[in-house]
Amino acid sequence: MTKTTVGAYLVSRLHEVGVRHVFGVPGDYVLGFMDQILESPIELVGTCNELNAGYAADAYARLNGVGAVCVTYAVGGFSLLNAIAGAYAERVPVIAVCGGPNQRDREQRRLLHHTLGDYDIQVEVFKHVTEMSVLLQDPEEAPGQIDEAITRALRARRPVFLELPADIASQACVAPQPLPEPELLESDVDATREAVQEAVRMLSEAKKPVILGGVEVHRFGLRRELEALIDHADIPVATALMGKSVIAETHPKYIGLYCGALSEEYVRATVEDSDCVLSLGAWMSDINLGIYTAAIDPLSLVHASADQVRIKHHYFDGVQLGDFLVELREALPAGAGGPRDIEPATRVLDQNFEANPADEIRIARFFERMNFFLTEDHVVLADAGDSFLCAGDLIMQEKVGFICQAFYCSIGFTLPGALGVGMADRSLRPVVFIGDGAFQMTAQELSSLIRQRVHGVVFLMNNQGYTVERVIHDGPYNDIQNWAYHRLPDAFGGAESAVVRTEGELEEVLARIEAVPDRLYFVEVQLDPLDCSAALKRLGKEIGRQQGLS
Amino acid sequence: MTKTTVGAYLVSRLHEVGVRHVFGVPGDYVLGFMDQILESPIELVGTCNELNAGYAADAYARLNGVGAVCVTYAVGGFSLLNAIAGAYAERVPVIAVCGGPNQRDREQRRLLHHTLGDYDIQVEVFKHVTEMSVLLQDPEEAPGQIDEAITRALRARRPVFLELPADIASQACVAPQPLPEPELLESDVDATREAVQEAVRMLSEAKKPVILGGVEVHRFGLRRELEALIDHADIPVATALMGKSVIAETHPKYIGLYCGALSEEYVRATVEDSDCVLSLGAWMSDINLGIYTAAIDPLSLVHASADQVRIKHHYFDGVQLGDFLVELREALPAGAGGPRDIEPATRVLDQNFEANPADEIRIARFFERMNFFLTEDHVVLADAGDSFLCAGDLIMQEKVGFICQAFYCSIGFTLPGALGVGMADRSLRPVVFIGDGAFQMTAQELSSLIRQRVHGVVFLMNNQGYTVERVIHDGPYNDIQNWAYHRLPDAFGGAESAVVRTEGELEEVLARIEAVPDRLYFVEVQLDPLDCSAALKRLGKEIGRQQGLS
Repeated sequence: MTKTTVGAYLVSRLHEVGVRHVFGVPGDYVLGFMDQILESPIELVGTCNELNAGYAADAYARLNGVGAVCVTYAVGGFSLLNAIAGAYAERVPVIAVCGGPNQRDREQRRLLHHTLGDYDIQVEVFKHVTEMSVLLQDPEEAPGQIDEAITRALRARRPVFLELPADIASQACVAPQPLPEPELLESDVDATREAVQEAVRMLSEAKKPVILGGVEVHRFGLRRELEALIDHADIPVATALMGKSVIAETHPKYIGLYCGALSEEYVRATVEDSDCVLSLGAWMSDINLGIYTAAIDPLSLVHASADQVRIKHHYFDGVQLGDFLVELREALPAGAGGPRDIEPATRVLDQNFEANPADEIRIARFFERMNFFLTEDHVVLADAGDSFLCAGDLIMQEKVGFICQAFYCSIGFTLPGALGVGMADRSLRPVVFIGDGAFQMTAQELSSLIRQRVHGVVFLMNNQGYTVERVIHDGPYNDIQNWAYHRLPDAFGGAESAVVRTEGELEEVLARIEAVPDRLYFVEVQLDPLDCSAALKRLGKEIGRQQGLS
Repeated sequence: MTKTTVGAYLVSRLHEVGVRHVFGVPGDYVLGFMDQILESPIELVGTCNELNAGYAADAYARLNGVGAVCVTYAVGGFSLLNAIAGAYAERVPVIAVCGGPNQRDREQRRLLHHTLGDYDIQVEVFKHVTEMSVLLQDPEEAPGQIDEAITRALRARRPVFLELPADIASQACVAPQPLPEPELLESDVDATREAVQEAVRMLSEAKKPVILGGVEVHRFGLRRELEALIDHADIPVATALMGKSVIAETHPKYIGLYCGALSEEYVRATVEDSDCVLSLGAWMSDINLGIYTAAIDPLSLVHASADQVRIKHHYFDGVQLGDFLVELREALPAGAGGPRDIEPATRVLDQNFEANPADEIRIARFFERMNFFLTEDHVVLADAGDSFLCAGDLIMQEKVGFICQAFYCSIGFTLPGALGVGMADRSLRPVVFIGDGAFQMTAQELSSLIRQRVHGVVFLMNNQGYTVERVIHDGPYNDIQNWAYHRLPDAFGGAESAVVRTEGELEEVLARIEAVPDRLYFVEVQLDPLDCSAALKRLGKEIGRQQGLS
């Protein structure tokens, strides 16, 4: 039987499922495995710290379908935890590999550096935030465990954690056979048929049906199926915040973002006045639905999620979202949505944007301008906070991706995230919108964007503090140190950098950015500390009320 | 019965046990509790991210006896985890408080931002790395749980974790009564007497006894007892790396740092040729003992740790280190160490340091020079890596503290650590020695040192990469982006900054630092990438050998 090593087996499997870059930070327990990566076609991409490596791998996976990260024991693993928890919450398949002390040391529980007495703590901790967390301690069992972990990560769209002791990485094991196609989860045929029939009846009888596209359409790779359904049935579609860009936003049936009370009035009215809302993979989470201000009549709602369909007050278990989507299209008469006047979201592009050069930049105006800046080659990364609320109303062109962590909401995610996007597809230009408080969390990763020559654009929205918290409930804890942000690119190795305060200055910088499409550009946008979107004001007030703070 | 609120009760208890500063990052689930801190005499000190807040609280606790940190749910808690794991490994009592969703939301398992479905994950995860991790969900039970957690943290010298839901913080509970003196752990009287008698016999018969002072002398507040024993018995003393500065290093009986094969030859010979080594609270961990190159004859060893004494091959359980120290002094004849010529560690101060202005700075020379720079008002923070190996040989004056994470070894710890030291005692000047790879991990916290006007000195030892890893096993993963480090203070808000490459430049900068004792000073020390201490070369080779990498 052909032999390989456990580490090489794992590297080979990562490559096979589509991992081309592994993000990470070295440490003595993992150097051997890193050597095995270097010997493979996979590129190892260093980051400044482990949390940032995890964020990069998460964003990479959102674009690429799967991502991977590699760190050392305990100090590395525990620093990575929050990124993996975020991937778990938002269903992103990140394969985390962590070095570990040699088996012999583990058995003797020696007091090695980075250890805590009990060597099993790390793998136990990760069980809470992964689909599978396992110690690879036996070269005979390791190939099966690796295959199981990777298969489960891809099937469940969740992270997994593999702890690989330094001495096991180089031990012999069987060479990998081609990974069998992951078995698709099968739907309950009868339940699916019944759910589809009921949905068809409701949609056919409705006068004003609407589709609400959600995040799971992206996670389970169903964007084409969604588009086919819309085209076939001629039903207008809105998306929830996390589902933004699951349909090309220039599509004539796309009407805009639905986010409860935070939505534009036209979108809100169209969704909430609908007599049949077909919700496809949207999460009923707080921010996604405007802090539960969404007002969709449950008697008009067909809510399909990963493996369940809910209609009115009854459930169909074991109905896979993909099967439901396909069978619904087949069963629904063409043009079931009927002839209807709708206003496509692209309506905002009809209005020209005219800069007022002397005016100070207001955040609402800034994002209006962005609609005319973004092109097909951009991927937008909007950080948690006013950035993602404002960016939600941008129009994503055909190929434009939109990445945000609108459920887990870990601020600072998008800066390392841009590194992930930049490595996943060199032809795309990541465009980051991030507040100053968020930026300070992960600021050093700007240096990795420079180092890897990612030709992204970072818009640092400087409103001097944690503006979201200010809106919820203000106090001195929301003040932060004001940095000369635009000087950082120079300190980190050099990149184009600018600071803008007026609409005229912004226009000049945007022209320069367009003129150097192959370079990283950092722009500090100076805003009035009290300037924020109307949506954020509504959101903050609602959160404050729920927390009893206002 | 007097009433207060759960949050105010907790704040009051923190203040009572000596917490004067709480480090943290705001988030909506914890804003209410932060308001309660603001209403108290305790100062809330913001950091750029949660990991750094945890490191600051850890270093604060090492100086102050106890520290505290406060963050928001999940995104905050999980980002903090590695700092708490470090405090757990190194026995530092850090009280971590984390906000949480309202109880009603928790019961309904609503999909709130920052949550992961199962609301209990966070408190479960922290059970692995704390003395106690508890959800304060009942205002009646909370006071007892808070008292138990704080008492256990102080007794065990370990961190604890308290999750405080947003709505519970403001609910009424009984007002605190004075916290009872924590019951000291009692020694087994007979076992202690027997162990002391045997130790006295061995020490009295020995011709060349030596004491090895360890970290637990610091953690259990036994520095005076150790000094009293040394003065009484006239026995020379060395310290392990983690125990550095448990005895004033200008003490005439202090001979230097013992770290196995990494030690100076004189110290190594004195310890290893001794016919009775009395080890007091030293951890038998890898780096602490020179990666197990320590060669102390077990037949000559009396090894007392927190609650156990081991002599030769037998154990005495239930012997508290403090009781053993005191009773040993009482039972040991004065001058038991006998008349002996020893070379005190201060011998290195007898040699003058003469700068060679044109010479490039070598790391060994740099640390030789530091012995003449450090004063009584300094606290040294030496980051994991060559920084702590070199700094180990510095002479700590009477009051000088020495802080390093030599067991858990999480790089980047000392920069936020300096914030903790600076807040713990405004009269002290923290002096950080940190490598460039470590600095990049937590670089943004330099801005908090500026913001809080900490008049510290940061020596950034720039040798272009992860030098420790290079020595263990080199590869491209050990390269990092080279920053213009000295420009960062300017970007972060302004501080004195310099870059030095020659001994002459170093002299000029040291003179300026001494001239502005009330200001923060940042110095980038440019070193040859291949320049490292002889100790590191030995250490790296040994680790590499053990990991099978060389």
